Amino acid sequence: MSSVVDLKLIRRDQFTPSLDALTSLTSHEMRRVNQTIIAHMDSPVILIRKVAEHVVAAGGKRLRPMLTLASAGLCGYTGERHIGLAACVEFIHTATLLHDDVVDEDMLRRGTASANAVWGNKASVLVGDFLFSRAFELMVADGALEVLRVLSQASSTIAEGEVMQLITANDVETSEAAYLEVISSKTARLFAAATEVGAIVADASEAERRALESFGYNTGMAFQLIDDVLDYSAHQAILGKTVSNDFKEGKITLPVLFAYGAADKRERRFWHRTLVDLDQGEGDFGHALKLLNQSGALTGTVDRAREYAVAAQAALDQFPDGRIRAALLEAVEFVVDRSY
Amino acid sequence: MSSVVDLKLIRRDQFTPSLDALTSLTSHEMRRVNQTIIAHMDSPVILIRKVAEHVVAAGGKRLRPMLTLASAGLCGYTGERHIGLAACVEFIHTATLLHDDVVDEDMLRRGTASANAVWGNKASVLVGDFLFSRAFELMVADGALEVLRVLSQASSTIAEGEVMQLITANDVETSEAAYLEVISSKTARLFAAATEVGAIVADASEAERRALESFGYNTGMAFQLIDDVLDYSAHQAILGKTVSNDFKEGKITLPVLFAYGAADKRERRFWHRTLVDLDQGEGDFGHALKLLNQSGALTGTVDRAREYAVAAQAALDQFPDGRIRAALLEAVEFVVDRSY
Repeated sequence: MSSVVDLKLIRRDQFTPSLDALTSLTSHEMRRVNQTIIAHMDSPVILIRKVAEHVVAAGGKRLRPMLTLASAGLCGYTGERHIGLAACVEFIHTATLLHDDVVDEDMLRRGTASANAVWGNKASVLVGDFLFSRAFELMVADGALEVLRVLSQASSTIAEGEVMQLITANDVETSEAAYLEVISSKTARLFAAATEVGAIVADASEAERRALESFGYNTGMAFQLIDDVLDYSAHQAILGKTVSNDFKEGKITLPVLFAYGAADKRERRFWHRTLVDLDQGEGDFGHALKLLNQSGALTGTVDRAREYAVAAQAALDQFPDGRIRAALLEAVEFVVDRSY
Repeated sequence: MSSVVDLKLIRRDQFTPSLDALTSLTSHEMRRVNQTIIAHMDSPVILIRKVAEHVVAAGGKRLRPMLTLASAGLCGYTGERHIGLAACVEFIHTATLLHDDVVDEDMLRRGTASANAVWGNKASVLVGDFLFSRAFELMVADGALEVLRVLSQASSTIAEGEVMQLITANDVETSEAAYLEVISSKTARLFAAATEVGAIVADASEAERRALESFGYNTGMAFQLIDDVLDYSAHQAILGKTVSNDFKEGKITLPVLFAYGAADKRERRFWHRTLVDLDQGEGDFGHALKLLNQSGALTGTVDRAREYAVAAQAALDQFPDGRIRAALLEAVEFVVDRSY
């Protein structure tokens, strides 16, 4: 463990941020979001219900729909529409995960067997398509073209990001800009859409809408950067992901780009052999961790995440102080500081 | 060839129906549909352009978008919106094909290597997602919620149909009703949406809209039934599909259900071995063809297709005679009679 960056050391104070405040503020509405999700997964086709329930039950933090609810709340919304749209955001995310399982051949996701491992590629692709379509049906039921515009654009950007990621895989010469473009598309855009949609249903001002979009976007960037750090930290075992998935697949993330940029000739040969040629043996992952730590690649990536987090928090400056704003600010802290 | 049903023998007259009239009537508008398709496949990600261009170039008859254009024309539409929506229908169809390649491991589609065989499963899933999302962006740009409702429902029904097909695969005890439900969902619903959307943009009466929906639906049912016959007919080599794909995969289609229903004990063991256990050897496909012909399974399926074709044509009764109506009536004849 000693060779692994301890995210806790980077924290500036004794305060341990969590999602508790956000979870508690949105818990009543999240129950209804979950009911909506379950109601719209319904299908006469049993396999669809099974796979969809499996994925939704595996669940995770439901961060994106909570952000939609809180964003609407921050803009003073008191209606009902944010429930369906929060469910819609989670459907898009879940469909992406299902298709990601096919793509990345992840055998474990969040500690339980991935849908792919249980039912095969076929079911993952098709049930993912079903969830995507149901997301669009939910949006159409909402009836706001502005919402449809934001979420359909986010969906095609996600697909572009996933394809870009496919292209940069195994290419250690990927530029930092190209990497940032990938995570912007595949992750941050949906966070941005999740928060912007909250502002739209609340009929917020253009300035509030842009502020919440920026909040979501920067939170999403920080989230993905930390995800990429966690994939290389020993803590990841707690996350339930197979250790060093990105390494095994030769996925090119910022920690690797930083380490490669600082590498000498012999170290570059190591990265080429393991990530480009995918010629990996025992001890290689340990050596990779050593190089990532020695070069400051992991702490460097966390620093970068913190910059996005600061930008996310600054975007909320224009909103009056209150419980929702405080919960959102803490959620961003959590995103950067979560070491589990 | 003598053991194979000759579809031409089933035709009632000397007239050889074709898509020529429909193609010629819509050719001017189809050029613009194709331009719209190419413009909306554009992406900074080169791989997306390559895969999408490959799939769109492989092309096929573009029957669905032609039906949208002709349906709008039949209702007297003179505007522009049907161009984008016809492109949208083709995007949904193309995305489905891409995901179908992953699912069925088809190595050949329409005579050229499938996108899957060239770029792999990953690219097929993700570019399919991209095309789906672009289809929704096109619909949102159109701005009509009614259109969005029809097409998003069609999309989730297609996904349900594909999953149902996955479930019935290798199950020779599938009921005819279950098979019809599969092809209704995976094929006929998109045909129905393609024609209904034409009526919607033309602001047609409810009666005209229902008539065109019924026309599209029944045409789609006939189309899929004949596709399933062609997969077992020697003529399929001309279609460019790998011979006997459905057989190799153990896909359960109406010809097989008819033959299985008429089978004696020994023949049932044959179908079980080849389609359920997928234990297939040389000569098995020839034997399957023999059983399909002897039992009248292929001609029986064509008869069923003809019933749907008759219903499709009857749905156009309420429209005044004219070139568009005549072209649509002939297109249905072609769908049933195409022996190539």
